[in-house]
Formats: sequence, structure tokens, C-alpha cells
Amino acid sequence: MADEKKLTSRGEDYSAWYNEVVLRAELADYAPVRGCMVVRPYGTALWESIQSGLDRRFKETGHENAMFPLLIPESFMRREREHVEGFAPELAVVTIGGGKQLEEPLVIRPTSETVIGHMYSKWIQSYRDLPVLMNQWCSVVRWELRTRLFLRTLEFYWQEGHTAHATFQEAQEETMRMLDTYADAAVRDMAIPVVKGRKSRTEKFKGADNSYSIEAMMGDTKALQAGTSHMLGQRFARAFEIRFLDQNNDLQYCWTTSWGVSSRMIGAVIMVHGDDQGLKLPPVVAPIQAIVVPIWKQEEQKAAVLEVAESIRAQLAGTFRVKVDKREEITPGFKFNDWEMRGVPVRIEIGPKDIANQSVVVARRDVPGKAGKQVVPVAGLSEAVSETLREIQAGLLEAATAFRDAHIHAAGDYDELRQIVEGGWASAFWCGQDDCETRIKEDTKATNRCTPLDQEDAGNGRCVVCGQPAQSWSYWARAY
Amino acid sequence: MADEKKLTSRGEDYSAWYNEVVLRAELADYAPVRGCMVVRPYGTALWESIQSGLDRRFKETGHENAMFPLLIPESFMRREREHVEGFAPELAVVTIGGGKQLEEPLVIRPTSETVIGHMYSKWIQSYRDLPVLMNQWCSVVRWELRTRLFLRTLEFYWQEGHTAHATFQEAQEETMRMLDTYADAAVRDMAIPVVKGRKSRTEKFKGADNSYSIEAMMGDTKALQAGTSHMLGQRFARAFEIRFLDQNNDLQYCWTTSWGVSSRMIGAVIMVHGDDQGLKLPPVVAPIQAIVVPIWKQEEQKAAVLEVAESIRAQLAGTFRVKVDKREEITPGFKFNDWEMRGVPVRIEIGPKDIANQSVVVARRDVPGKAGKQVVPVAGLSEAVSETLREIQAGLLEAATAFRDAHIHAAGDYDELRQIVEGGWASAFWCGQDDCETRIKEDTKATNRCTPLDQEDAGNGRCVVCGQPAQSWSYWARAY
Repeated sequence: MADEKKLTSRGEDYSAWYNEVVLRAELADYAPVRGCMVVRPYGTALWESIQSGLDRRFKETGHENAMFPLLIPESFMRREREHVEGFAPELAVVTIGGGKQLEEPLVIRPTSETVIGHMYSKWIQSYRDLPVLMNQWCSVVRWELRTRLFLRTLEFYWQEGHTAHATFQEAQEETMRMLDTYADAAVRDMAIPVVKGRKSRTEKFKGADNSYSIEAMMGDTKALQAGTSHMLGQRFARAFEIRFLDQNNDLQYCWTTSWGVSSRMIGAVIMVHGDDQGLKLPPVVAPIQAIVVPIWKQEEQKAAVLEVAESIRAQLAGTFRVKVDKREEITPGFKFNDWEMRGVPVRIEIGPKDIANQSVVVARRDVPGKAGKQVVPVAGLSEAVSETLREIQAGLLEAATAFRDAHIHAAGDYDELRQIVEGGWASAFWCGQDDCETRIKEDTKATNRCTPLDQEDAGNGRCVVCGQPAQSWSYWARAY
Repeated sequence: MADEKKLTSRGEDYSAWYNEVVLRAELADYAPVRGCMVVRPYGTALWESIQSGLDRRFKETGHENAMFPLLIPESFMRREREHVEGFAPELAVVTIGGGKQLEEPLVIRPTSETVIGHMYSKWIQSYRDLPVLMNQWCSVVRWELRTRLFLRTLEFYWQEGHTAHATFQEAQEETMRMLDTYADAAVRDMAIPVVKGRKSRTEKFKGADNSYSIEAMMGDTKALQAGTSHMLGQRFARAFEIRFLDQNNDLQYCWTTSWGVSSRMIGAVIMVHGDDQGLKLPPVVAPIQAIVVPIWKQEEQKAAVLEVAESIRAQLAGTFRVKVDKREEITPGFKFNDWEMRGVPVRIEIGPKDIANQSVVVARRDVPGKAGKQVVPVAGLSEAVSETLREIQAGLLEAATAFRDAHIHAAGDYDELRQIVEGGWASAFWCGQDDCETRIKEDTKATNRCTPLDQEDAGNGRCVVCGQPAQSWSYWARAY
């Protein structure tokens, strides 16, 4: 049950607001182990909604789910030089099994390129076996120091796609296809506008030739990397001997990719749409799309009101995710606040007067107060709910896009960049050298979020730091 | 692709047959870590089918999914005396995190009563918060010595339900409701007949007051515990302080339950229905219900045949899980064997003659040779497939039930029991003492599978071992 105390406002303390929303909306809670979380039923239902949209897209593009093991021999992590550098400091290591010290320690997967690479080397022999297109839904563990519910936890939930191809071209196409898939799910399911682009050398996945990401702007203008797609080249194929006989009977290394979206997407949904009343969930992914609140003053009205509430639930249940709030120990006003906190898009109020008029009141989460309420005849309720949900979904995307676009500015010089990243994202030319990137990070805490692929409007720029000629511009922002 | 070599037959070597089927049907493979498995896409799709039937039943009975952490403080395992005795020898222990020795080691969950109990103690305050009805889908790790793909692996996939109630009565009802739910899923989805009953004191879950199980007979007559439901009493509530204020404002301990079904259910499906040609999958859970095999001899027939095959797939795809086998490098005969190995219930063959006649050949996996084939006009194909799948589902359950019933015999004395368990299950009276149970196990390798709850026909028996009066009889069998 939501706390009666008012939420900290976003303006007051954005970080406190975020934590309070997660806890009070009962999305998640702190686990007894530092940095780990428990995803409560409401958060799990939200994750299952997000999952189902992604899983459908993966299957439509020819991928199959599989389940690879949690435990990986420690030696596997060392096979790809850059990979071990990136992940060794973050590993959780099992040294005891069945009461005995293990001969070789096992690591809990931080990501599964290594063990999947090992299996692919067994399964792939011929060009006829390619492409191999697999995905798994699981949790992984990375020993993070600073943690935040959903945004960065020791254990987190995600999917990781892993594919193997005969040619560079096919692997590159797959990498971009999945990046586009992520962008599509973010925009259409979660109403989160994103930019797509290539990560810089220092920000890419350790073990990839190139990484690509979708980046979203949170309500405090910070950036959040919301999904990544990696072109692994032949690095893991060489490290794990993933080879195939081509049509000429020559032995070739495969080209592989990996791509992932995690439960931090829930953090993005909270921060992109939430307001000072709490969550605001996009209808496509909302676990409850419409909450029916029965209202009675006299005890003798109760039975009739509950009966109509239940019949309305039954009427809508085939089309929408709908629930009746039958709690008796709390007032309707408290229920309104509670479901606003939980971000349910549509509230349907039913009292004795409404029953007399054969109508109900439909209230929208995205329009506060009276302006968001309309009286709807019961006969036309399904259409009204459907239309309202469509409007809310579109409205959330529109508002988030407007907010983002208002907070992205082109930086003509370094001073401008420093100012812009105080409250937004800067787009700025960059020479591509690590030194200039590092300087921006050290001076401003802003990182290179990504370099958009479509640079038609780039023209001839000069690096905002060193003034050298620059072929492309990137987004720079402070990030979660 | 399935191996061309013939399968070992069940009569020749049941255990070799089982392993070959798992590997050749590409359900699973061995992971690089001893005792761990990789569930391949076909096995994962089968698991997802089984999951979806169970998950629907859980939600229909008011349960919600949640996600609890993988890592549990080692000290939690010691809070319930019997629980630690049962699980301590099987733990995988993380001692290093982020490159440092941990102050308190963490165990990978072998089951989650402890950490969920800890969270419930935070969430439950009042009788109004009860019942709490949660489930999670995850993997758990138990350091088993002897392992078999699906049947017993270090890491396995399962669901674990965990509920908290105000009264003994409600918890006991929940325990039995979930046992019935498991039996319903086994019988109706997996076509596996089961017996239900209480586990003996030595066989119960360590930490439960009482455990109940569903037990299935495999094709070699051995028993497999296919699901368990535990009445935990107030043991974990006391160990983790799960308490609530009742209507009189008195502080009470909750009554809790837990229940689980695992990926070993896949092993049961293989062994209950499989034959010397491979898998035989019940249509309700089969990842592919109908496989379309296009057949052509001359290259110029190919395009037309493939086109019709595709149109038939499209015609059936809205109702059934259907796929076209378009592989060109192998013969139709090889494809037939391959899909038989994988247990696809219905095969649809389409050749030039069939196209001319506007008909196809429908072959059933459960009836070998010509007898299982019928010519069906394309216009009536959907109905024919639907009817055939229904018949196969019913036929598999019928055959498995007949096999089971033919291999259960009442044992009037100890000698009879010894003989019966050589090739079946014995039902026999037992005094309830550990000593007699242990003697049976040591003498015959048969264990007490369960004591059925309905003992109306029990009469006045005497323990088959010691001859003392016995109130109830149990099933005794060798088991996986």
C-alpha cells in the first residue's frame, strides 16, 4: 500500500524522488545482499510486459530462445584479452561447491559471450548451420560499487542475443537490425524517444569491434544507455574456435554479434514519464491499464456498486488489463492517489449516481484534476477506454520527445559544451581521439553517449576540444 | 540435424537411449562445467510451453510472479535447523566479489525459502496483507554428484511458489491446491498420469512439516518425482520472523507453503512417451505441432511444391504451431526420421501428385507406417489436423496410464515387494517407522514414493516389513 506521506518532488531532489517512487509503487525493494534487488510483483509484471514486446520482435526476426548456464569456468573469461580486462574486476567467483574447494573457480556469468562461444564451436561445422540466431532471458551478476534500484544492481535481469554468421556483412546487418529493434520497442512500447549511434572506443563493450546503443533522456536531462548491440567481429570466434566449412570447403572463422536490453529499462520508464504524483506508465506496457474504483457512502450501496464494478471489469477484461480495487479499509481518495502513484493510465470511478445514469467517470493519469475526467456511458466504455489509452500512449511519446528536443543543443565551442551539459545534451564535433574525449569527461562529467550513424548534416566540423578537423559529431551528456 | 545412426533401443539400454534422444533431438547439451547443461532452442521451446500452462494456472489461482535474488547470505541458510542440514552439503558458495574476499560468503540459491522469508517479514504487518501468493521462474544450483541431463543437473530451471497465510487451514488448503494444479498440468498438458500423496519423513523437503508430491512412472517403470508442494507450517515464519497483527491486534506467526516444478519435467515427457524412434511429444506442449515436408523429384517441381507448402503453413499458422522443412541438402526420408526423432505429432507431406489432387498426406507420430497415414483434402486440413492432435493427446495419456497401471501391484508380503520393484511399483502397507522404510531401501533400492491421501480402500493392514499394524499403504519404487 502506498505511503500517505507526499512524495519528494523531482525539483526538490530527483534522486530521492526516484527511489521513493520505486519503493512506494512497490516495483522493487532492497535485497539483503548489498546492491541486489527484489523485483516485486508490480515491477515483475511491468518487466514481463516489456519482455513480451521484445520477445515477439526477436522471434519475428528469426531468433530462438535458449538457456545457457549460469556458471562459467574462470579460464574462459581470459580467452579474449580485452574482454577479461573489462570484466575481471566485476566478477563474482564461486570457489566452493558441495563443501569442497573447486579445482578451477567458476564465475557467475556477467555476460555470456564466452560460454556461448564455446557451445557454438561445438554446434557449428558448416555454412549450412549458419546463421545461428539465439537469445536468452536470464539474470547476470556484475560486482558494481555504486548501485541504484533497476539502474545499476549487482544482479540484473536482461536478455542477451548471440548470433553467428558466415560474413562480416551479415553480422553487421544483424547488429544494426537489433539496434533498430530496440529503438522500435523503446518508442512504440515504452513511449521513450531514443537516439541511435556508435559508442566511442572507450565506451564500447569490452571484446567488441564496435558497439552501438540507443540513448534516452531522463526527466533530469541525464542520459541513459537503454540498449546495446555489438559487432564482435571475429574476436570471440578466434578465442573460442567458432569455425565453419564454407561452400568451397575452406575453414573460416564466424562473425558474431551480441545485443542486450536489461531491467534498467524500467528505470527509464520511471524517469522519462514520471511526475510529482509518481509513475506514469505507457498503456502498451502497463501491468494494469484501467483500475476500477467502486465508490459508496452508505453500507447499503456497497453490494450494488461492487456488482456493477465487477460487471464492468468483466466487460473490459477481454480487451484490456483491468482490475477492481475492492479494498474496504481505505477511502476512494486514498485509492486515487495510490493508483496515480502506480501510474495506471486510466481510472474508472463508479458510484451510486453513475449507476443510476448508466455511466461512469473515466479519469486519465496524464491529465490532472477535472480536465482529465469525462463521463462515459457504460455502453460505450470499451471504445472510450481504447481511445483514451491510445491518446495517452501517443501523448507520453510526444511529451518526452518535446522535452528531449528542448534539451539538446549544438555546442559551437568547448565553453558552450560545458554550459549545455549542465542541463541537457550537447551535440558537438569531435576528432575521434581518446584524449579529447577524456578531457571532456574529466572537465564536465559528460561522456560521449554515441555518434549518430546518419551524419548527412555534419558538414566540415572541427573538434570542440582540440580544433582539429572532425568528420562526425556525437552526443555528450552526463549519464546514469 | 539428427544423426543418421540408429538410436540405441530402449530394451537394449534405456539409459543410453535417453541420453541419445536428448542430444540428437537437440533438446540439450553438456555445458563446460561438470553437471551443468545447455538447453537448446528446441528444449527451451518445450520448457516455454510447459511454463505457459503452469503460469496460466498460477495466475488463475491468484498468484503473482516476482523476482528474488540469486545470492543469499550464507547465514540465512542456517536459521532453520533442518533446512541447513538438508542443503548445506549441496551449496555453491561465492567467496570473492569484485576481486575481494567477501566478509560473509554468499550462496547461490538452492531454493529461496530463506531470502523470501526475510522479505515477507518486511512486507507483512497485518492480517490485511495476507495471503501473500507469489511465484518465481528462475534457475537454482545444487551441487549434485551424479547428474543426468534434465533429470538432475547442478543448475536447473524451475518455478518456486511461496505463500504466507493467516491460518494453518488456509496454508494446508494452498498446499493441496498447488499439488492438484501440478497433477492437472501433468495429466492435461503433458499427458502424464500421476499419483498424488504425502512424502515420508525421510523423503520430505528439509524444512517442511509435510511434503506432498506427484509421482510419474517412466518407460522403464522407475518413478520420477515430478512436482512437490510443501506445508512449511510456522518453521520459516519463526526462523525469519514473518508475523502479522491479527484482527484482535495480537502478533501471530504466519503459516507458509512452497511448491515447485522443474525442468526435470522434460525428462518425464521424454521417458513416458518416447519410443525407439525418439521423442513423442504431447500436442499441447509440442513446440512444433505439425511439420510440413515438401517433396519433389525434378528440380522444376520445386517451386510449385514449396509454394503450396508455404500456403498450407499460412493456412494452419493461426491455429497451430506449424513449420515447413525447406532444407534442400537432405532427402524427404531423412526429414521424416528427423521429425520423428524430435517427436512432432503430425507430419504433412506434399508432393506434385498431392497438389494435382488438392490433397496432402497427414502422418501421425503415434501410429507407425502406413496405418498412421491418411490422405486429406486441403480444404478440410485444419479440421483434420485439429482432430488428429486431439486423438494423439488422448492416446498418449491412455497408453501411459495403461502402462503404469499394468506395472503397479499390491505386495502382500516383503518377498512380493522385492519381486515387484524389480519391474514396477509396489503398493504396500507400512507402519510408518523410519527403520522399516530404510530396510526396504537398502534391500531393494526402492524408496517410498508417496502415501496416497485417499486411503478409503486401505482396510486393516500390517507393515510389509515388520508386520505391525499399519494405517496406510504407500507406493514403493526405484526412482530417478
